[in-house]
Amino acid sequence: MKRAIVLLSGGLDSATTLAIAKDRGFQCHALTVDYGQRHHAELDAAARVARALQASEHRVVPIDLTVFGGSALTDKTIDVPLAPSAGIPPTYVPARNTIMLSLALAWAETLSSQDIFIGANAVDYSGYPDCRPEYIAAYEKLANLATKAAVEGRTLSIHAPLIALSKAEIIHRGAALGVDFTETVSCYQASDDDGLACGQCDSCRLRRAGFAAAGLPDPTRYR
Amino acid sequence: MKRAIVLLSGGLDSATTLAIAKDRGFQCHALTVDYGQRHHAELDAAARVARALQASEHRVVPIDLTVFGGSALTDKTIDVPLAPSAGIPPTYVPARNTIMLSLALAWAETLSSQDIFIGANAVDYSGYPDCRPEYIAAYEKLANLATKAAVEGRTLSIHAPLIALSKAEIIHRGAALGVDFTETVSCYQASDDDGLACGQCDSCRLRRAGFAAAGLPDPTRYR
Repeated sequence: MKRAIVLLSGGLDSATTLAIAKDRGFQCHALTVDYGQRHHAELDAAARVARALQASEHRVVPIDLTVFGGSALTDKTIDVPLAPSAGIPPTYVPARNTIMLSLALAWAETLSSQDIFIGANAVDYSGYPDCRPEYIAAYEKLANLATKAAVEGRTLSIHAPLIALSKAEIIHRGAALGVDFTETVSCYQASDDDGLACGQCDSCRLRRAGFAAAGLPDPTRYR
Repeated sequence: MKRAIVLLSGGLDSATTLAIAKDRGFQCHALTVDYGQRHHAELDAAARVARALQASEHRVVPIDLTVFGGSALTDKTIDVPLAPSAGIPPTYVPARNTIMLSLALAWAETLSSQDIFIGANAVDYSGYPDCRPEYIAAYEKLANLATKAAVEGRTLSIHAPLIALSKAEIIHRGAALGVDFTETVSCYQASDDDGLACGQCDSCRLRRAGFAAAGLPDPTRYR
């Protein structure tokens, strides 16, 4: 059984990605990066999702990105915007996906895995540069120069199965694969204690609109 | 004055790289990654070098790569080889430069810096895949897709000024720029307490041969 590393934040997209990787027959090693995000509710969600979808293993690796800051998610003095804005929003975390994929790459190599899954999406998203297909393609090219495994001919693939799907399509796909979305937390500023969502941030808006467009009840617990 | 992020391990190469960046007129922000390497002597060396070469700032960011292991430097059950061997040696750390450059990229973006320096060398080196010019070029391409800064037109350069130099040439360049090599630690298994080098590992061999080829006395303190 082939092993895959699956980046798992605890949100709707990464949960669906894990379900897809499992459905494709991979033995899934879920990786959550505790980068100093505003709340721990999504880390708890990641653990629940990994268990519910029977990942072979779930590791949480801490890397404190608040030392660099520069984002509403890693600097509490920057507010999470509660209305849509033009351009890349302040919730963008500098180099976040690049750092998370790099950690996934390290783990992939030590596990002799040639497959990394990431729930990046470039349709119903916040406009982050490191979610675009050309970014994923460039990362795959890099990965295939970066490692001993690649030099020895073990090609690595970066799978972003959600990249071209709408949020409604992601929800349908996840539901069909048995993802329980009540377990997931997408909110940028969920409550630490009970994981309740704010219902107003970009991530909450995209998620809520996704359930509406999918014609499914929104199971999100709002505060 | 333009800002640069300089990856600084505390060894001879990264010290010379910092001196080169400074000589090119950059305000240097030195970044050391404490990834769980075998000894702390090189972290102490990095702090000394940053001070001696008057970096504007020196940050040490911890990311524990021993959770993945897979290298003689991050798994103490794997021995550091004391004789040359064919192929990529067991001191290769999976995705190390990719992880370190990713952290540098995050800091660069928050500092509005467009320049990252790394002391990668592909001449007198251990054959690591992530030290080759094509790897550095691929990383630069990735970086220019990854960030908000890049999307907004602020192009990022990855400088690897040592990439094509021999160890002797690096030593001459560093010496000319005032690097005090007694401050640096290159050994893969230096003593934690006094920083004494083993004199036998790949890194010690390359360094010793470099001073001999440069016709300069080797200031390394061996045990």
